[in-house]
Amino acid sequence: MPRYALQIEYHGGPFAGWQRQAGGLPSVQAAVERALGRLEPGPHVIAAAGRTDAGVHATAQVAHVDLARGWDPFRLSEALNAHLRPDPVAITACARVEADFHARFSALGRCYAFRLVARRAPVTHDRGLVWQVLNRLDLAAMRAGAAELVGHHDFTTFRSTLCQSKSPVKTLDRIEISELGYPGGIEYRFDLAARSFLHNQVRSIVGTLERVGAGSWEAGDVRAALAARDRAACGPVAPPQGLYLVGVVYPADPFAAPARR
Amino acid sequence: MPRYALQIEYHGGPFAGWQRQAGGLPSVQAAVERALGRLEPGPHVIAAAGRTDAGVHATAQVAHVDLARGWDPFRLSEALNAHLRPDPVAITACARVEADFHARFSALGRCYAFRLVARRAPVTHDRGLVWQVLNRLDLAAMRAGAAELVGHHDFTTFRSTLCQSKSPVKTLDRIEISELGYPGGIEYRFDLAARSFLHNQVRSIVGTLERVGAGSWEAGDVRAALAARDRAACGPVAPPQGLYLVGVVYPADPFAAPARR
Repeated sequence: MPRYALQIEYHGGPFAGWQRQAGGLPSVQAAVERALGRLEPGPHVIAAAGRTDAGVHATAQVAHVDLARGWDPFRLSEALNAHLRPDPVAITACARVEADFHARFSALGRCYAFRLVARRAPVTHDRGLVWQVLNRLDLAAMRAGAAELVGHHDFTTFRSTLCQSKSPVKTLDRIEISELGYPGGIEYRFDLAARSFLHNQVRSIVGTLERVGAGSWEAGDVRAALAARDRAACGPVAPPQGLYLVGVVYPADPFAAPARR
Repeated sequence: MPRYALQIEYHGGPFAGWQRQAGGLPSVQAAVERALGRLEPGPHVIAAAGRTDAGVHATAQVAHVDLARGWDPFRLSEALNAHLRPDPVAITACARVEADFHARFSALGRCYAFRLVARRAPVTHDRGLVWQVLNRLDLAAMRAGAAELVGHHDFTTFRSTLCQSKSPVKTLDRIEISELGYPGGIEYRFDLAARSFLHNQVRSIVGTLERVGAGSWEAGDVRAALAARDRAACGPVAPPQGLYLVGVVYPADPFAAPARR
């Protein structure tokens, strides 16, 4: 059966997360599998690079699926998008891949972004798309705090107690924090990259760094929290609506071929 | 009674437009007046610089109101924002102004932006915030078409038959069109400025220029449509969700004072 990689963009708001839920709660995975079922008899089970939580968005989730027919990738993405309506889920790229490509296990890295907006007035156009705080944050302090977390560490403090990963030891390759203009306020954008992340790791890190930016924590407190290897030492977990899965890295970009459109 | 100028941001989606509706349909004006009524007994009637249509957004609408009490402008904006929840309407600046300031009649100019996204896959995060078309447009052709419209003209072709303006003659000071990156596609941003606009003028212009960008019209067709002074000669009217009132120009910026916060 030919295998296809799908690049998927979604608004996490209406979903209980990426993963299909036992109780029938809406999930992005179920939405895509249902659309696949309109093209070929199922059941279809797709695997994704990142199992995003309820309310978390993606601009470039990657999943793969095996189909009976040899589809033209562009036609496949168009047909899926037609069947995905009106769900806020879109196939933004599609490619035929080798049988040994696996969206999750072939991935060499994941990139997440987090949008944090600081302003007094409630956001209107970006409601559900950013985390809003009221006061401006100290960028240099947040960067100093972030520097404590980059590298190879035991991230027990920064993972959910529900995390199913065998080991809490991960290598965080990058945390970059930039300030962007925002009407009447300021936006802080966090960009994180790692081979893989623990459950709630990005939100735990951003929530902790926000405390540093607000002056409640110092960079040294982040170092101590990490060293504690204790979930209770973590700062507040940032809410899901600011988080975006923005990229998955593979040995070769499956969507680089002309079939990408 | 002290007079206050309010800078207002809103998501036009849930509203039948800026203006209070006879039938009780939701309007931005009614939402703000209702919030004012929670601060001081009303009725409050506010005047705004631009009466945006149903579904049209604003990042910087301006309105004025007379209140009995002398409010600190920052506290006034905070109190209004508290009472505006959960409507997607926010006071982003507030200032005490002179009694002869009028949000509508003192305005020397209005600036509108229009967001048009061209890509195959349906937009997800920006649903309701942009107009989406499927194919890339010809930027140079749209700019040539736009150049036909800048200046002092009879815009009968480009105004709604419902337009209540006494004269169809207006001076369009500026149409700038820029190309921005957009995931999996491209965004065209239109920026228009004039002392004032006719009803549906921006959407009529953008809808017509999209036809030029798609190759269905040439710049000369825009010139001919303008010269026809006939509503039937207009291209399709662009949908409201791409349109934003982004600025109002006054002899002196009422929000420039430190009170702005």
